[in-house]
Amino acid sequence: MTQKKVILTGDRPTGPLHLGHFVGSLVNRVKMQDECTQFVMIADMQALTDHASEPELIKKNILEVAFDYLAVGIDPKKTTIFLQSLIPEISELTMYYLNLVTWNRLKHNPTVKQEIKQKNFQDSVPAGFMIYPVSQAADITAFKADLVPVGDDQLPMIEQTNEIVRKFNRIYKANVLVEAKGVVPQIARLPGIDGNAKMSKTLKNAIYLKDEIDVLKKKVMSMYTDPTHLKIEDPGKVEGNPVFTYLDAFDPDKQKVQEMKDHYSKGGLGDVVCKKRLLEVLDSFLTPIREKRKEYEKDPKHVLDLIYSGSKDAKIVAAKTLKEVKDVMHMY
Amino acid sequence: MTQKKVILTGDRPTGPLHLGHFVGSLVNRVKMQDECTQFVMIADMQALTDHASEPELIKKNILEVAFDYLAVGIDPKKTTIFLQSLIPEISELTMYYLNLVTWNRLKHNPTVKQEIKQKNFQDSVPAGFMIYPVSQAADITAFKADLVPVGDDQLPMIEQTNEIVRKFNRIYKANVLVEAKGVVPQIARLPGIDGNAKMSKTLKNAIYLKDEIDVLKKKVMSMYTDPTHLKIEDPGKVEGNPVFTYLDAFDPDKQKVQEMKDHYSKGGLGDVVCKKRLLEVLDSFLTPIREKRKEYEKDPKHVLDLIYSGSKDAKIVAAKTLKEVKDVMHMY
Repeated sequence: MTQKKVILTGDRPTGPLHLGHFVGSLVNRVKMQDECTQFVMIADMQALTDHASEPELIKKNILEVAFDYLAVGIDPKKTTIFLQSLIPEISELTMYYLNLVTWNRLKHNPTVKQEIKQKNFQDSVPAGFMIYPVSQAADITAFKADLVPVGDDQLPMIEQTNEIVRKFNRIYKANVLVEAKGVVPQIARLPGIDGNAKMSKTLKNAIYLKDEIDVLKKKVMSMYTDPTHLKIEDPGKVEGNPVFTYLDAFDPDKQKVQEMKDHYSKGGLGDVVCKKRLLEVLDSFLTPIREKRKEYEKDPKHVLDLIYSGSKDAKIVAAKTLKEVKDVMHMY
Repeated sequence: MTQKKVILTGDRPTGPLHLGHFVGSLVNRVKMQDECTQFVMIADMQALTDHASEPELIKKNILEVAFDYLAVGIDPKKTTIFLQSLIPEISELTMYYLNLVTWNRLKHNPTVKQEIKQKNFQDSVPAGFMIYPVSQAADITAFKADLVPVGDDQLPMIEQTNEIVRKFNRIYKANVLVEAKGVVPQIARLPGIDGNAKMSKTLKNAIYLKDEIDVLKKKVMSMYTDPTHLKIEDPGKVEGNPVFTYLDAFDPDKQKVQEMKDHYSKGGLGDVVCKKRLLEVLDSFLTPIREKRKEYEKDPKHVLDLIYSGSKDAKIVAAKTLKEVKDVMHMY
């Protein structure tokens, strides 16, 4: 029997999770937990790197994210769900790795450079944010992850991790750390309801897993479609039309979707009809998730205990790696 | 009874300690341990920031430094001697503080800027080195130190620490962290035997506390003096003459030193005579230190146990601070 691959993944607890998270990662996690040894990290320390003054927000969203995990079927019996800040070994590893990376290298990390622009930090980039690729290397290597699911814009982070792994193993003449492979999911992202390429909390264009039917309805019925599709009888564009992208992602009746696409392209199918179908599809997708979530929401203490218990397990693994790291570094 | 002041000080274990360390800090520590709650840190993690590829050197020198501490009379019953890497709380605090400091601020730290020049890092400054002022803030605040003895070139480090303290307390509406005061010792530095303003391992101009009599003799007899003092009968310069600086620092017979200075200035007193006197003075200063050191060297395991035990005590204090920090940050 070959050893199971180790997979590390996670989320920054800055808000509840949405359909984009589901399609881009959650669905894979539910699948991977049967095939791999899976660690899912709630990255509260990483969230602090650009939310240092909003710790209450992070605290609140740790539970929100955990509710979503459990509601979609990430099973704490199969997946180790843990809280980053409960694993001090990650901070220690980060400190050691920081000596193996130059300041210049960090400055030129393309992912970080782009995020700095997006976040409009200007001259006030927090040092913690600049070094977060090194902290990510600590997250990944602490668990000797083979696979790390990432968006394609995040691949440079994996390269930074592997540079550290190689340098560490070379300098300390060791074989302790493991290189990771970034895995870009088939559907990496879902557009927002406003037609923006990415669904995101910040852009306020997200449908959340926990959205109630009335909220869901409002969001779906107000969705961006083909702006040139003015009259029902006009031919409409399917490509770049988020209503159809969502139908592709969530409607189990693929034939029906194809028929609707053909009809819409030819003309004669109104946006409202398409949206109503999408609402139906999304509601039957979200209803069991919503119901399961409500069960967990009733007992947050239990969910917290699951996180604590997962963190305890994760800590054992990370502590073992840290010990190996310190041993080859000749540390007491 | 007012509470004792807390003092934090320490050394990077990159070599054994020398007369410059004695005059600039060790002598004060021996005094302060009766007046203050004193923590002395062997900063192995900080040493790694610019010695990442020499971990054996650091390991070896942890004991060397500890031998010197004990030999000069730092008493582990009065002073908590600890090893930085055994206190993971310092790494955790560093990670939280990094979010409170901008990248730009770190770039412009005058102490770090000067050291980067001296160390000739060029384009390869390790990120760990750039952020070490934040790690120092963690060292200092973990023990809520009121006083931190520093060289005058290190005062910007204390300012950086206090900026973090103020920002932390403001953002998290807390009073958890304590501002520190840098204390510059009266004799902050001793010149090297080559006349260089600073005695240092790197400059190879140091007399070590552990130097044997023959090594000591060679160093003293080859010392830089007044280069214009060619003939014995010539008047010699006392100022900037390290032989007299050392006599001022170590000769208990102040009157005799004054007489020699007068004689040397007038002319008629040879360098060899002065050096012989200095040798005598230094040897009787170093002999008890050397002997005590040899006792400890015989039982390194015992010294290691002292460090472990001090680190255990230090960890309790740092863990208490970290808990307070995480509590006001609303962390689990």
